[in-house]
Amino acid sequence: MTIPTKITNQTFLQAARGEVTDHVPVWFMRQAGRSQPEYREIKAKYSLFEITHQPELCAYVTALPVNNYGVDAAVLYKDIMTPLHGIGVDVTIETGIGPVIKSPIKTRQDIDALGSLDPQRDIPYVLDTIKLLTAEMLTVPLIGFSGAPYTLASYLIEGGPSKTHLKTKSFMYQHEDEWHLLMDKLADMVIVYLKAQIEAGVSAVQLFDSWIGDVSLIDYNRYIAPGIKKILAALEDSTAIKIMHGVHATHLLQEWNEMPLDVIGMDWRMSMAAARKQGITKAIQGNMDPAYLTAPWPVLEQELNRVLADGTTAPGYIFNLGHGVFPEANPAVIKQVTAHVQAYKSQNS
Amino acid sequence: MTIPTKITNQTFLQAARGEVTDHVPVWFMRQAGRSQPEYREIKAKYSLFEITHQPELCAYVTALPVNNYGVDAAVLYKDIMTPLHGIGVDVTIETGIGPVIKSPIKTRQDIDALGSLDPQRDIPYVLDTIKLLTAEMLTVPLIGFSGAPYTLASYLIEGGPSKTHLKTKSFMYQHEDEWHLLMDKLADMVIVYLKAQIEAGVSAVQLFDSWIGDVSLIDYNRYIAPGIKKILAALEDSTAIKIMHGVHATHLLQEWNEMPLDVIGMDWRMSMAAARKQGITKAIQGNMDPAYLTAPWPVLEQELNRVLADGTTAPGYIFNLGHGVFPEANPAVIKQVTAHVQAYKSQNS
Repeated sequence: MTIPTKITNQTFLQAARGEVTDHVPVWFMRQAGRSQPEYREIKAKYSLFEITHQPELCAYVTALPVNNYGVDAAVLYKDIMTPLHGIGVDVTIETGIGPVIKSPIKTRQDIDALGSLDPQRDIPYVLDTIKLLTAEMLTVPLIGFSGAPYTLASYLIEGGPSKTHLKTKSFMYQHEDEWHLLMDKLADMVIVYLKAQIEAGVSAVQLFDSWIGDVSLIDYNRYIAPGIKKILAALEDSTAIKIMHGVHATHLLQEWNEMPLDVIGMDWRMSMAAARKQGITKAIQGNMDPAYLTAPWPVLEQELNRVLADGTTAPGYIFNLGHGVFPEANPAVIKQVTAHVQAYKSQNS
Repeated sequence: MTIPTKITNQTFLQAARGEVTDHVPVWFMRQAGRSQPEYREIKAKYSLFEITHQPELCAYVTALPVNNYGVDAAVLYKDIMTPLHGIGVDVTIETGIGPVIKSPIKTRQDIDALGSLDPQRDIPYVLDTIKLLTAEMLTVPLIGFSGAPYTLASYLIEGGPSKTHLKTKSFMYQHEDEWHLLMDKLADMVIVYLKAQIEAGVSAVQLFDSWIGDVSLIDYNRYIAPGIKKILAALEDSTAIKIMHGVHATHLLQEWNEMPLDVIGMDWRMSMAAARKQGITKAIQGNMDPAYLTAPWPVLEQELNRVLADGTTAPGYIFNLGHGVFPEANPAVIKQVTAHVQAYKSQNS
């Protein structure tokens, strides 16, 4: 992968590599879509799948926050279910529920029936969207992403979102061999998916393991880590930045710090300075509670300054939220937060 | 409060005080109800409110797991919404949803309208249930409980269960004075509720702050801790054991360790031995993932032994799950786990 020459703002990439930057770079998970009026107009006419399958439209949605907010990175507008279609999973996104899987995984046969992903054949529109964005539209890096195997498996086994993930864990404990087979197949899919995104032009990839915080450290190392390590090993030769993000995952930070990845995403439950003191040496991305975007400006500003001071005790800091932007967030506030972060002067700089 | 003379098994109380015990005491959150066939027969005939309002029936349900599993403590069968009725909140428990509040709190007037709890007038059936249990039925300690102010407030403001608690946090950030007023009123209610339970005969009280793990440490100290400290100060003269339990709350353990309480409940995300190394000196209650109750016995047994070794690095250990028993748990397995815990011999004993 070569970084497209159009990237004039490299701040995000520099921070991700642990380098000193002239300002704190900022992007927001779920910055594309949901809270933006331009997006809502599009969404009134097209379904999520219709948007993601039309490269011009999807590229427009992805670029919106860069143009409107002035963030330092774009993130591909895409649902984490996208690659599952390619391997033969019948998944729909239902309003007010989320992803719904028609035939949840119950047996080894169901796992054997999963196909392998051929990005050119199965999801050419993703690659075309990336090419459009990186060749023409963006002057900031584009971040691609994939759901991680545990989170994808939880949807496949539960059949949709779940508060407890009990079926997933029961399957894991009751059918360990089948579980590892499923993790391995999903890891292979994620590798192909992320390599294709990198080949098409993204400068960074983020593994979203949204539900991994529900798994204990012991279970993580036994049931989950092998798949993650396989993915990261397959990407090790790439110069693309690798970001790992989980929610409620404070107990996994040390494990991630030992893995071949560049950036650890943290949620708001733990102080980033405390993580540094406990030996976290990777770049850190985080960690304001997205609920603060609904706070009055003086309260929000105080929290922003606290988060910024907490994050900048060492080089390699990227401002983000601890989880995605809520649809309720005001775009004017997101823009104001972006400017505030970029104007912040660290006590240590 | 005097401990009723009928308590012949004091193991739970000894461990809660940090004393050495002849076996590891065990109880399960949500042990009463849900997974038990005897309970399901009753639930087919009566609603939750009908059960909790009939002291004989409610005492029977509370005592069932002591008789069936041989656990070392009973926990009052009761919904956390119970005291809210007494202060004038219209709350119903709807199947498949949970608590639903008819008029969620939106303004200062809504908070001013909340009454104060008079247990004898408002919830005499709770006190009668406790008296029946402690005077006649139990030879183990009875644990009473209350939801903590943040968790109660989240129901009152959201109107029911919420994945994000965005309305709650928005209210907290936007209306700090009203928020503190609400926390203070709920703290007063919790104090009256727990004191009445202690007076009626419970040997321990647990504060369930189910959703507190969603709040950062900074926000906890600013918005939540004052109410918790008020509750604990009001109970400080009582000899009843005080237990604090949250989920996803690893980041709050140090705060709780400084408070006048006896036992910290931990979920499965962090090792209990690691918490000891970080300076947690209170008794610890936890912390097996309840999903393990669905694992095959060899997998479950291995995890039990790991949890037991992890918990018994210091005196003052009570075995429990990190969250409540799932309805899917097999009662025979719960009984087997109870016996296994009680037969466990620590390497350090």
